[in-house]
Amino acid sequence: MREKNRTETVIAAVRTRIASGSLARGERLPSIRRLASQHGFSPSTIAEAYDRLVAEGMIHARPGSGYFVAGGTLAGAAPNTKRDHAVDPFWVSRQALEADPSIMQPGCGWLPESWMPLPALRHALRAMSREEGVLLTGYGPARGSLSLRQLLTRRWAEDQLHVAPEQILLTSSGTQAVDLVCRLMLSPGDTVLVDDPCYFNFRALLAVHRVRVIGVPCLADGPDLDAFARLLRQEAPRLYLTNSGLQNPVGCTITLHKAHEILSLAKAHGVTIIEDDIFADFAPRPFASLAPLDGLNRVIRIGSFSKTLSASLRCGYIAASSEMIERLGDLLIATGFAGVSPVAAEIVKHVLTGGSYRRHMEALHCRLAQARKEGAAQLGSLGIKPVIMPEGGFSLWCEMPAGCDVTDLARNALEEGIVLAPGAVFSVSGETSRFMRFNVAQMAENNIIGQLAVLLGRSASSG
Amino acid sequence: MREKNRTETVIAAVRTRIASGSLARGERLPSIRRLASQHGFSPSTIAEAYDRLVAEGMIHARPGSGYFVAGGTLAGAAPNTKRDHAVDPFWVSRQALEADPSIMQPGCGWLPESWMPLPALRHALRAMSREEGVLLTGYGPARGSLSLRQLLTRRWAEDQLHVAPEQILLTSSGTQAVDLVCRLMLSPGDTVLVDDPCYFNFRALLAVHRVRVIGVPCLADGPDLDAFARLLRQEAPRLYLTNSGLQNPVGCTITLHKAHEILSLAKAHGVTIIEDDIFADFAPRPFASLAPLDGLNRVIRIGSFSKTLSASLRCGYIAASSEMIERLGDLLIATGFAGVSPVAAEIVKHVLTGGSYRRHMEALHCRLAQARKEGAAQLGSLGIKPVIMPEGGFSLWCEMPAGCDVTDLARNALEEGIVLAPGAVFSVSGETSRFMRFNVAQMAENNIIGQLAVLLGRSASSG
Repeated sequence: MREKNRTETVIAAVRTRIASGSLARGERLPSIRRLASQHGFSPSTIAEAYDRLVAEGMIHARPGSGYFVAGGTLAGAAPNTKRDHAVDPFWVSRQALEADPSIMQPGCGWLPESWMPLPALRHALRAMSREEGVLLTGYGPARGSLSLRQLLTRRWAEDQLHVAPEQILLTSSGTQAVDLVCRLMLSPGDTVLVDDPCYFNFRALLAVHRVRVIGVPCLADGPDLDAFARLLRQEAPRLYLTNSGLQNPVGCTITLHKAHEILSLAKAHGVTIIEDDIFADFAPRPFASLAPLDGLNRVIRIGSFSKTLSASLRCGYIAASSEMIERLGDLLIATGFAGVSPVAAEIVKHVLTGGSYRRHMEALHCRLAQARKEGAAQLGSLGIKPVIMPEGGFSLWCEMPAGCDVTDLARNALEEGIVLAPGAVFSVSGETSRFMRFNVAQMAENNIIGQLAVLLGRSASSG
Repeated sequence: MREKNRTETVIAAVRTRIASGSLARGERLPSIRRLASQHGFSPSTIAEAYDRLVAEGMIHARPGSGYFVAGGTLAGAAPNTKRDHAVDPFWVSRQALEADPSIMQPGCGWLPESWMPLPALRHALRAMSREEGVLLTGYGPARGSLSLRQLLTRRWAEDQLHVAPEQILLTSSGTQAVDLVCRLMLSPGDTVLVDDPCYFNFRALLAVHRVRVIGVPCLADGPDLDAFARLLRQEAPRLYLTNSGLQNPVGCTITLHKAHEILSLAKAHGVTIIEDDIFADFAPRPFASLAPLDGLNRVIRIGSFSKTLSASLRCGYIAASSEMIERLGDLLIATGFAGVSPVAAEIVKHVLTGGSYRRHMEALHCRLAQARKEGAAQLGSLGIKPVIMPEGGFSLWCEMPAGCDVTDLARNALEEGIVLAPGAVFSVSGETSRFMRFNVAQMAENNIIGQLAVLLGRSASSG
């Protein structure tokens, strides 16, 4: 490892410990000598890392007593509050977002930067620098870039979803899209169905809305129809929030028949469905999604470009009936004034219409298929078994070896600078605590299998 | 006027009528001949404009029967719903955001694009195209760019507000910042104080939170202290939402003594203050703001870079106690996953740290001082009187001539492609219906005084 990389490794480790709260504000850092022996690096490497963290304002040096995490004694700062480190639905987001880029993140929900369409993004940024002033400085239209909305209508028409641009509201993320719909439709105490397991942040989002959340078991071919029908009868839910394709975290895709049944049941019980289409572009071939079957009568399609194009641009969308979009648009003005950045929407459009994007996605499908195969084999060698082999995407939902305390494993991994995604955070029922979601693209970039084996061994022996 | 400009004028006028709803979906447009005679343009100009609107999908041509507004007959579109055109708090936002850039907007709350720091923005975009991949594709840290937060702490320290970077949460706008604080602190039925008049979108935002909103009369030197004290006693508000400097729409700046009194009263009654600092950079000299007086104990500072740097980038902030920022950060993850775009935050930082921004702002102060002087003189010639002459910024809050029906005037102006800001939308009490807010920078760019004179004459004669 080069000297520079060593320093960065130390900086990343300290940052992660501060972000995760294992080093609290005002707490003393390990001495230079101690950390040097722990990492097997020279004291000068540690000193260099500490100096840079001091320059960044992350830590303070107090001559004679050592280095301390900043914040505890700064003017205006609140008293030293030790963060609650429950492995709750926020756990993965918090660790993954706060982690240094050099931290290994087999638990995170995005691709490594080198797998993203970077040349097209760089080209689009240069093109933007020559754009009209109003695009670079103005608020843009209330529903977001008309040209991006028109492009979406054309793309969706290829999959038999016919919508007008006025039926689309651009947002700053898929999460904001779901939140806006929830703000419009839900009152505290309402019941909402989600898949079990589901994307952990749906749980955090629905908690903000103070609604009852009930899980529909997710099978290998989509939601459990019997359970869905029973819950509709017994619980009178207002909304069902689901991924039809490459469900997060299971990776399953709904069958055409099931899609039809789900829609018929929802119609019979007056339930609205939010279909989160965020992983659609990862499907190598089109799948049965609810929106085109329904024609956006009771299905609301939401999604974003964060997974395949760029999360940094913050661009998502809602497609629904014109009337609902009109009301959601007013809600967006009131609560954010404008949704997506006009220049970001233009960059998204630029990349999507450039010839390179389709080629990029085709190459990505192949690369991911290979990574899924290799990842499954590596995990299998540790006794970690994928529940299904998804048709696309980067996630493997896996059953962990018997005797493994998954939450404990995730906590121990974090101490070593590895962010994992323990099954419990994905589940309303809590019945997935023996599972974990693995990101095969992150695994391919960082050889974590060796470290995972050590951690598993430790977790088994301590359990 | 050149041929191209004529065509664009027609396109803009049709777009505005569609956006405002005065031409509904499915409605027939005026014939080419009729519109040509109305505008005094040639029929070929109108035909060219209609052709371009057809190409954009805004209107349809039906051979033999004319041109129709699109949307009414598209698959999946909702039935033709005629929009309620109440002059409500949404009115100005909706018209101003939906307007074509060529529409004249003396009522809007932003500068013309040519007054914005465009060269610095273009330079920053080019620099971004060479940035690290993770910045261009990743979610970035949960609280937003650390380097922008560090920069803000240094800028604010110059004005004696000392905060740590961890006390700042970057958001996608000032509006989102206020919304997040309201989501954390308010329950339906709570009471919130605002200035009367205040920024109209505060009213729309607070309506979403279903709280009681009561106005504190805004005088020439800030809020009416007696009324503020009485409302604190009688109404037990939870929050007070205000601009201390260059108040929107009045343009007044609070005195140091008043700031101290407001803060003492708020403390005595346990009220939290959201201080919207969005116009701070327009003040040619520092003013007494509440945040540094208080040290962010009960004052929450929010703001954005939309007015002086770029609204397109969508970058705002909240500064508060570390504990509150921690809770707001979780709320932002749950409801939007990330706030500001990392690449947008980097562009903002790039522009703010570039030497040209300070020079740009100095030149802007002079240009605005001149525009305020000229705007006041022009408005005065029509009997429209600014209530005070603000020390900075682009807004003049004016009393309209006796006998002028302000709401009627705003509606008529919209039909002519001019967006005005009628006083009623700014007021909780409704006592400002004889006032209007004028944007002197927009007035300087577009010679609207002549058209305003005609509209005023029409409004007086019809009233």
